Amino acid sequence: MSTDILKGKKGIIFGALNEMSIAWKVAQKAHEQGAQFVLTNAPIAMRMGEINKLAEETNSEIIPADATSVEDLENLITKAQEILGGKLDFILHSIGMSPNVRKKKHYTDINYEWYKTTLDVSATSLHKTLAIAKKQDAINDWGSVVALTYIAAQRIFPDYGDMADAKSLLESITRSFGYHYGVDKKVRINTISQSPTVTTAGSGVGGFDKFISYAEKMSPLGNASAEACADYCIAMFSDLTKYVTMQNLYHDGGFSATGVTNDIMDMM
Amino acid sequence: MSTDILKGKKGIIFGALNEMSIAWKVAQKAHEQGAQFVLTNAPIAMRMGEINKLAEETNSEIIPADATSVEDLENLITKAQEILGGKLDFILHSIGMSPNVRKKKHYTDINYEWYKTTLDVSATSLHKTLAIAKKQDAINDWGSVVALTYIAAQRIFPDYGDMADAKSLLESITRSFGYHYGVDKKVRINTISQSPTVTTAGSGVGGFDKFISYAEKMSPLGNASAEACADYCIAMFSDLTKYVTMQNLYHDGGFSATGVTNDIMDMM
Amino acid sequence: MSTDILKGKKGIIFGALNEMSIAWKVAQKAHEQGAQFVLTNAPIAMRMGEINKLAEETNSEIIPADATSVEDLENLITKAQEILGGKLDFILHSIGMSPNVRKKKHYTDINYEWYKTTLDVSATSLHKTLAIAKKQDAINDWGSVVALTYIAAQRIFPDYGDMADAKSLLESITRSFGYHYGVDKKVRINTISQSPTVTTAGSGVGGFDKFISYAEKMSPLGNASAEACADYCIAMFSDLTKYVTMQNLYHDGGFSATGVTNDIMDMM
Amino acid sequence: MSTDILKGKKGIIFGALNEMSIAWKVAQKAHEQGAQFVLTNAPIAMRMGEINKLAEETNSEIIPADATSVEDLENLITKAQEILGGKLDFILHSIGMSPNVRKKKHYTDINYEWYKTTLDVSATSLHKTLAIAKKQDAINDWGSVVALTYIAAQRIFPDYGDMADAKSLLESITRSFGYHYGVDKKVRINTISQSPTVTTAGSGVGGFDKFISYAEKMSPLGNASAEACADYCIAMFSDLTKYVTMQNLYHDGGFSATGVTNDIMDMM
Repeated sequence: MSTDILKGKKGIIFGALNEMSIAWKVAQKAHEQGAQFVLTNAPIAMRMGEINKLAEETNSEIIPADATSVEDLENLITKAQEILGGKLDFILHSIGMSPNVRKKKHYTDINYEWYKTTLDVSATSLHKTLAIAKKQDAINDWGSVVALTYIAAQRIFPDYGDMADAKSLLESITRSFGYHYGVDKKVRINTISQSPTVTTAGSGVGGFDKFISYAEKMSPLGNASAEACADYCIAMFSDLTKYVTMQNLYHDGGFSATGVTNDIMDMM
Repeated sequence: MSTDILKGKKGIIFGALNEMSIAWKVAQKAHEQGAQFVLTNAPIAMRMGEINKLAEETNSEIIPADATSVEDLENLITKAQEILGGKLDFILHSIGMSPNVRKKKHYTDINYEWYKTTLDVSATSLHKTLAIAKKQDAINDWGSVVALTYIAAQRIFPDYGDMADAKSLLESITRSFGYHYGVDKKVRINTISQSPTVTTAGSGVGGFDKFISYAEKMSPLGNASAEACADYCIAMFSDLTKYVTMQNLYHDGGFSATGVTNDIMDMM
Repeated sequence: MSTDILKGKKGIIFGALNEMSIAWKVAQKAHEQGAQFVLTNAPIAMRMGEINKLAEETNSEIIPADATSVEDLENLITKAQEILGGKLDFILHSIGMSPNVRKKKHYTDINYEWYKTTLDVSATSLHKTLAIAKKQDAINDWGSVVALTYIAAQRIFPDYGDMADAKSLLESITRSFGYHYGVDKKVRINTISQSPTVTTAGSGVGGFDKFISYAEKMSPLGNASAEACADYCIAMFSDLTKYVTMQNLYHDGGFSATGVTNDIMDMM
Repeated sequence: MSTDILKGKKGIIFGALNEMSIAWKVAQKAHEQGAQFVLTNAPIAMRMGEINKLAEETNSEIIPADATSVEDLENLITKAQEILGGKLDFILHSIGMSPNVRKKKHYTDINYEWYKTTLDVSATSLHKTLAIAKKQDAINDWGSVVALTYIAAQRIFPDYGDMADAKSLLESITRSFGYHYGVDKKVRINTISQSPTVTTAGSGVGGFDKFISYAEKMSPLGNASAEACADYCIAMFSDLTKYVTMQNLYHDGGFSATGVTNDIMDMM
């Protein structure tokens, strides 16, 4: 349902790969709500993806960018403002990748070069994006930045590996940069900590189906879908949430506040 | 700006006393967004208040209720459904009162009968409201309940006295009841932890002006206003936030994630 | 192993009922470490208990006290100082009881008079103890107060009922009173959040054996025993932890920081 | 006062530079309590430091190691076991350094190569140490690892810069590795979040004296000293705390649980 709550707002959406991506749903819903935006993803991800379909559907342009490259991000933020005809109001950061998880290196035996890549792609990319945006003064006052994260940053899930560390770092960057960008320009920065979601990224994690089922049983409302997560992103981009900043916001059907459920106890 | 995001939704709003009340602003904004609701407050509060003006402005009826009285609450919830022609979609709980704080009893020397009143009015009232709603099956699936709280539940502010304990209890009830109501009926229950706000209730707290100024200096975005808080309540009542439950949500301009600011350091 | 780390310290231990009680183990270990103390429990609990055996073993006296009665607590704290020949250095609060849980009232359908009793016995009793101690100036500078709690104060366990609310309130009192007593007299106050433990109190909770087994599987180190908890209490009473205050300290084998374990996933 | 609570325990202590270092005090107290250990620090730090004096005083050997070098750490852990004649029981990680902070790069304008160094030295060094210890099976069951951290990992202090991110990463590694090492070998891993402390490392941070004074006023018990922190480390290495793992433990005089104090309000 369109209620135009993002009418006139301009943004950048990172990470839409295919219809399963949360970022894909965010793009669809932001479009529905009256926003204009630029889509971006890593050049390599775009070759695999169907992002052109999404661009067409949402009447948006695509600017490829490697989110670890300061040059690519500078180009992205400059061009996005040209295309959209003004400063940005929102950014979605939905980027995460761990070579150690992909190559099934156990957490206690990781490759440290790959660890740097995990942190660089999944967390430092947010710092770079914000630093460039701030230098270019590319975000309007009260603009809203959302990065997607997972509760593994607070509690350990054995198969999540070094992505837990990357998400902790991402959440710290959110707070640290949120302080400075808030004081200077009223820009607010938050993470949404989403239920495990069947996406192309999520599917890389071992035993994922069983895990989705566990999280479903442990969440009073069940797992939040990618679509529901997109709704929450829209709320966070809107003017309804202007004083929320530097927060980690659980969007997880109550998982984070649940110690055990009857469903889980019935299995014992 | 009306975007009709609460179109067709029905609710009950507790705690609108006068134009300074957060609940008052919630009523105005909920009306603007297409909701219908019943207003309620304690009979004694209503005599002092200007709630009739609000009822007229928002085209709503008033049902007085003492929020510590199970009978009054039963009557309220029954009548509200009759008046609104159906089950509820949202409830705002904005109720707090401490005889110990009012009568300036130091926290280490409280009157224990008054302490019971503090807890009963400010926290147990939410349990009673939810228990009755659940018995009457008065809330639609995916309905949303919001209670207003303060960060004194996590960190001590010397003048906040036993209200800190009441807010901790309120937040616990939110989680506990949120679990059961979530599992059974998909009803979600959250607290919003708001910046200190100049309201009639807030003004009772000692040295409040100085304190407001401290919080302003300690919040990267500044203190959130009552109006901004109302916006956030609207977001939480809307379908954009369906999988958020059992959470305590800081709406405080970043205060909760800030250790110190340059503004405060400049005073040292 | 005695290392005399509480040598010369004087205290009061609430809640030793029988050999399964955590408080019982604390008494044994505090005695071993050179402390002197008074034992106390509710008159009714003492009739059922074997506390005389413990008193003999630890060379300590017993002063019965209903922990909801200001008079009883005044008498306790006055007498304890007389018996021990000086001010107190430590207090253990290990008291909890819910008529609603005992009588199997569902959390969504509690009796509100019993709820008051739950809160009064399990939480307000700590406030009363501290308020009286402060008025009598009964605790030495750098004295240490520990109250036992459970993670249900943060995350919901369906069978724990209204004790979750009582524990939240207890933890809030710990923080609030810890602030004031810390500023005035350097007294520190903390809660230890213990693994589920097979005690007489614990056994009242439904399906407890299955639950113990769940917690065991969800804790990287396994559940902490009553004896290990007593060790931790000793550490908190000692001079090794003088600057820890107003904290909730998990003593749970890692349960609180674990999202899932392989043991639990294997059951799915 | 020696109570021999670490009698027979063997360990490695990272980070003793001079008498102001927390690690220095830990070494002195661990020695006093009957422990044997190896001291280590970066070769460059050792040239500046007076570590030989400490080695003599505590009858311990020194093994230089660059904590970012897997080879150095392998050598350290192998040799330490040879020198001490057996496996380790405890490790203290007290290492942190940010080129961005040293060279006064603002957080929003950091050098990303230096950022990698900050993370590598201050956080990944703990992972490397633990990974090597685990491969060598160098830690006894129930061994205890403590890393020192700061509350900037949770709340922003503008001058702390990218060290906040490093500390968040360090705390995440503590949880992640704590899970795996706990499940496999009962080794427990925690961080102690210490008051700001006047050490050589701390003094690098801008306006540090004013900041120490702020923290003092905001802590009900005042700032914890380096010596008190060392006491807490001893407690965490002892058998009194065997079931505490994957935790971040505030040792801060109550700072973390305080919203404001009267001392601070008096300045407004």
